[in-house]
Amino acid sequence: MALIVQKYGGTSVGTVERIQAVADKIKATRDQGHDVVVVVSAMSGETNRLLALAKAIDDQALPAELDVLVSTGEQVTIALLAIALEKIHCPAQSFTGSQVKILTDSAFTKARIENIEVVGLRQTLAAGKVAVVAGFQGVDDQGRITTLGRGGSDTTGVALAAALKADECQIYTDVDGVYTTDPRVVSSARRLSTITFEEMLEMASLGSKVLQIRSVEFAGKYGVPLRVLSSFTEGPGTLITLDQGDVMEKPVISGIAFNREEAKLVVRGVPDVPGAAYRILGPIGEANVEVDVIVQNVGLDKTTDFTFTVHRNEFNKALNILEQVAKDVGAREVLGDDHIAKVSLVGVGMRSHAGVASRMFEALAKDNINIQMISTSEIKISVIIDERYLELAVRSLHAAFDLDKA
Amino acid sequence: MALIVQKYGGTSVGTVERIQAVADKIKATRDQGHDVVVVVSAMSGETNRLLALAKAIDDQALPAELDVLVSTGEQVTIALLAIALEKIHCPAQSFTGSQVKILTDSAFTKARIENIEVVGLRQTLAAGKVAVVAGFQGVDDQGRITTLGRGGSDTTGVALAAALKADECQIYTDVDGVYTTDPRVVSSARRLSTITFEEMLEMASLGSKVLQIRSVEFAGKYGVPLRVLSSFTEGPGTLITLDQGDVMEKPVISGIAFNREEAKLVVRGVPDVPGAAYRILGPIGEANVEVDVIVQNVGLDKTTDFTFTVHRNEFNKALNILEQVAKDVGAREVLGDDHIAKVSLVGVGMRSHAGVASRMFEALAKDNINIQMISTSEIKISVIIDERYLELAVRSLHAAFDLDKA
Repeated sequence: MALIVQKYGGTSVGTVERIQAVADKIKATRDQGHDVVVVVSAMSGETNRLLALAKAIDDQALPAELDVLVSTGEQVTIALLAIALEKIHCPAQSFTGSQVKILTDSAFTKARIENIEVVGLRQTLAAGKVAVVAGFQGVDDQGRITTLGRGGSDTTGVALAAALKADECQIYTDVDGVYTTDPRVVSSARRLSTITFEEMLEMASLGSKVLQIRSVEFAGKYGVPLRVLSSFTEGPGTLITLDQGDVMEKPVISGIAFNREEAKLVVRGVPDVPGAAYRILGPIGEANVEVDVIVQNVGLDKTTDFTFTVHRNEFNKALNILEQVAKDVGAREVLGDDHIAKVSLVGVGMRSHAGVASRMFEALAKDNINIQMISTSEIKISVIIDERYLELAVRSLHAAFDLDKA
Repeated sequence: MALIVQKYGGTSVGTVERIQAVADKIKATRDQGHDVVVVVSAMSGETNRLLALAKAIDDQALPAELDVLVSTGEQVTIALLAIALEKIHCPAQSFTGSQVKILTDSAFTKARIENIEVVGLRQTLAAGKVAVVAGFQGVDDQGRITTLGRGGSDTTGVALAAALKADECQIYTDVDGVYTTDPRVVSSARRLSTITFEEMLEMASLGSKVLQIRSVEFAGKYGVPLRVLSSFTEGPGTLITLDQGDVMEKPVISGIAFNREEAKLVVRGVPDVPGAAYRILGPIGEANVEVDVIVQNVGLDKTTDFTFTVHRNEFNKALNILEQVAKDVGAREVLGDDHIAKVSLVGVGMRSHAGVASRMFEALAKDNINIQMISTSEIKISVIIDERYLELAVRSLHAAFDLDKA
């Protein structure tokens, strides 16, 4: 008998019928002899409906009152799910974040969990009931309702699993696991049966939207085994673990992530003196523009070219800042390109394998894809290319690293 | 400076625009220098929408989970109203029943208030804020959410006013006060500026739906001055008080209530022996059928006719029970009539005036309206008549007792 935390997102509980289907899944887990704590989101669309009501009154509404408002979304779901469970003779009790209680700081609309009391949940489990917990919400030390921000229900699930020392935290979603790459781009993309937290974090940060990055960090930090499964189909999903097994036996690459939401900026002919990087990136940071990949090379004429990427939405803002900065630092010119894409190979296996980069570059060269920037970390290699070649690059790399083979 | 509790019902907060109008009314009260605690219901239609979701899953849903579900309705309203108040620079803070806290027993869906903690509300008022409280809900000693049942928001308003020793509890509704009778029946019906709790209780129990009877009882018990006003128009409304002033100067009759939701049952030729009434009404009570007016007369032949009224919805149920009962007690026959109406004169003034009954019967006789049953209390006289004559009777009595004159 294990203790399982299951988390169902908004789409999985989007209608009364789907809530009943979720109840069946939970009962099946109970019938296998496991204790179950369930975390649910608001029914899909509900949070936006509530926020629209608030916005109709004041688009600068008090965050504390917004939390009182939107936290009703999950409260509706826990009650309906508990009713659906009782209906099929699976005893259940609902808990709001406050009832659990999930103590957070007072950063309304983006609160962080500080502590979780598990006594009430353990009593509920001991009484043979399923505990149905509202995700995304908590309560501060003044008893005021808080929310964890968008995607916070995953975090609630993982945090509960950590606090309860659960055997597994299962995140039910509309995909049936983590894939070697996006199946819409590469039809032979394959579901991974396991992936490490490190790899999952890189995949998530690179645009693969299966899980909220914060919940993966949290699960990794507390060593909570995390499993991604589909609410709508049967299957084992993908298990995300600390255990890397024998790295030597690992495939070199676990997956390919990509992102077409970035833009590139180049400041050319920057006098190569100490502090140049700071004088260029300082004003960008002050304007709250986040920078992703940064590359700098020293040229022959005592000047350097300074290249970095930002989110495409902030391209024009960054370009305007740089025009002024270029004058200040005496740079020759500023260039920009908002038609780029980033493709990344991810895998803990590359730590012990040489030649991953050259194999990657070879595959791209064969297709005449020009590499504009390169950036590496211990378990990742990213290249920036013209966005027209994105799909081609992903398909070529998927084949070159044998990702379609189990 | 006074402390005012204001209660706004579901229609008054039915849209974002109406919530903003309510905020304006509250601010106007604040600007007069008063402290304000506001109690609100769910936006109209919301409670039914939520209950329909539950019913789609299980029409025998657990009461405790229904309370978790429907209590979200008021929680949405308190957040939106607090946002609307802050928008017009009227500082506000919302409170769920649990946050106040309004302690109730654990009779889910029909809980009773046991205690109200006022410390948090007083701190909020002392900080210059309006306290916006969710009506209809509370929390039991296990921290579980409860609701007070339909119409419970009025009760919350009155209970808060009593606990805070407020100067007045204002119930905002869609009518602008209590009338001498229903203005849809008598166009010259007049708004009363004051009415006593006793009279209001009789009016309410007789079908005048301005206030929930439980909240009037509560207000009377704790001596909370209660005022009924319109959310949509200006005006002083009707004040409901303990103070009866000088009864001698009071009008004989304050108002005329009526009810066409009853049905009459007659058991004829019941042997006139001790225990007959019990043997007839016992089975009715056991079947949870509520009985209103009861009349019994002893006849000449050692038998008696036993007549009473029940709600029209329970007419057939009661009739079936009586068919059997009549055999058991040896009664001659059972008759029924579900086309009756009850008309009642109400007024504390009748205590000191003789002849109210005869004046009433005279007025009805002039219009050839036959009286089927008569029932009296200290401040009320009710007659049962054929429902066809209801409007005529009310108009005649309204004129006969000069109710259209201030």
